[in-house]
Amino acid sequence: MSIRIGILGYGNLGRGVECAVQQNDDLELAAVFTRRDPENVSILTSTAKVCKIADAEAWKDKIDVMILCGGSATDLPSQSPAFVKHFHIIDSFDTHARIPEHFEKVDAAAKESGHIGIISVGWDPGLFSLNRLYANAILPEGRDYTFWGKGVSQGHSDAIRRIEGVKNAKQYTIPVESALEAARSGSNPELTTRQKHTRECFVVLEEGADAAKVETAIKTMPNYFADYDTTVYFISEEELLANHSGIPHGGFVLRSGVTGWEKEHKHLMEYRLKLDSNPEFTASVLAAYARAAYRLSQEGQSGCKTVFDIAPAYLSAKSAQELRASML
Amino acid sequence: MSIRIGILGYGNLGRGVECAVQQNDDLELAAVFTRRDPENVSILTSTAKVCKIADAEAWKDKIDVMILCGGSATDLPSQSPAFVKHFHIIDSFDTHARIPEHFEKVDAAAKESGHIGIISVGWDPGLFSLNRLYANAILPEGRDYTFWGKGVSQGHSDAIRRIEGVKNAKQYTIPVESALEAARSGSNPELTTRQKHTRECFVVLEEGADAAKVETAIKTMPNYFADYDTTVYFISEEELLANHSGIPHGGFVLRSGVTGWEKEHKHLMEYRLKLDSNPEFTASVLAAYARAAYRLSQEGQSGCKTVFDIAPAYLSAKSAQELRASML
Repeated sequence: MSIRIGILGYGNLGRGVECAVQQNDDLELAAVFTRRDPENVSILTSTAKVCKIADAEAWKDKIDVMILCGGSATDLPSQSPAFVKHFHIIDSFDTHARIPEHFEKVDAAAKESGHIGIISVGWDPGLFSLNRLYANAILPEGRDYTFWGKGVSQGHSDAIRRIEGVKNAKQYTIPVESALEAARSGSNPELTTRQKHTRECFVVLEEGADAAKVETAIKTMPNYFADYDTTVYFISEEELLANHSGIPHGGFVLRSGVTGWEKEHKHLMEYRLKLDSNPEFTASVLAAYARAAYRLSQEGQSGCKTVFDIAPAYLSAKSAQELRASML
Repeated sequence: MSIRIGILGYGNLGRGVECAVQQNDDLELAAVFTRRDPENVSILTSTAKVCKIADAEAWKDKIDVMILCGGSATDLPSQSPAFVKHFHIIDSFDTHARIPEHFEKVDAAAKESGHIGIISVGWDPGLFSLNRLYANAILPEGRDYTFWGKGVSQGHSDAIRRIEGVKNAKQYTIPVESALEAARSGSNPELTTRQKHTRECFVVLEEGADAAKVETAIKTMPNYFADYDTTVYFISEEELLANHSGIPHGGFVLRSGVTGWEKEHKHLMEYRLKLDSNPEFTASVLAAYARAAYRLSQEGQSGCKTVFDIAPAYLSAKSAQELRASML
């Protein structure tokens, strides 16, 4: 019998989860829950239902794991603790500073209701976090580096769109190759986020807007751009749609450390993701952790978990025996 | 109180474990067990004892985790099942094809005695295996690639040393850059091990040996070299010692996969290790898993485990709360 999945929120991430479920034979999409009128939401999976979020509770015996696909700013802080009362849940809560608080809320609700809630699943937080943990445990003396990109930053793109005279915009965060090489060199340089990244902005102007003024507004914007080496390209709406409609992302997690009685040997551990579609890849991570949540629940476990708490074997559809024979 | 570590076998790996223990405040070396006369074995840790392997059993209440540092060919197949009767153990058994059999033997003995045995710990098997598992669970449709090197292959170096006229030799396995780029490209090429690697041999001849004959013997050696692009360099013993006495290694694990309803998006997951000292790095992985074994035992668990069965948080000296706050 397949693990029955529910999707809460049907934006890019929700649709990505739907695609991921299709790629996993042991997962099956039961229903998608949306804020919109279900009549107006068309999904890809012919066998699944589209329902209102308000009706979700009625599905609690027909869904094994609910994957929450809302945003970290306003949706997940309330949805995760609320839905874990009725379902095993997975979320991709990614406001790093607020993770401890989110954990406590989900943990309390999950323990009370006997459910599993796995939070902050994705690639950062998620796979990048795992690599930081493994690398730090193995090389206790060393230095960590995280680079993001090349990829689209939604927050920075939005910030540009709010500038007067801007019709549309896309911002790419790009790792600086020389900084990446410095991190790999074993010289353990101190590198700030801004030394490690540049920003490229593709901007469509409103008719009659002043390009020079917009460019200055972008480049001097505090926090977002002022401290970065920022390049602005003005392009047509057609070009933006043709060449910049994807949502690629990725990045690098490195740890450079030493071993030996006299710390005489250097080591580099590097993890890299290069993703054509940030939401679809994130969704694929969510789907694998949904399998883990189901298995943990079958063992009678409950409470809030993160990727740190889940033994890797739980993510795979293969048995422990198959894994040892084929992947170890 | 620190976790008391025993080291069984004091070669390069055993000494590497000793160095790793020094780097971890919550670990403490209790004793080293050796086949040699303890009088003639000098270790680095002034507070630890050197004992005969035959006396190990007397230490069963004074050691929390015994790290087995013998070889996979003859030592570990018998030592791991034998020592797990008295200790929680970690080994680095790396004969891939015989892992299932080794697992069963250690599991039976561990369950009977109530101990934990974590086998096949290191980087391959070990960290590379973990990356294969995570990547396959997340991208079920895709292709895996493993490249080894640049690094010293002990087996290939030994094979050269057995040729008549060879005094000493060191063999490096080197990944082919163009094959690595092809694997990264998303075109999912089929690449055999031999297409992915070349071999470089640094050879010191016995006086009067025939260089051409030795070179032919190397390049035509079945299984080891015949099917590879092999380069042979004849050098002096001094040069070998000066430039080739290290034991570097490393490699790459890649998975190239697709997501999307029409499989329209490509993704690359890449893990890379670049190690100055293969045994010291492997030892550092063993030390982290010794911590995990101790914690699992404190929870009352027993039986044989692999890296697939251990939740990442068990490897770190930090608490779950600290990990969530600092690394997620």
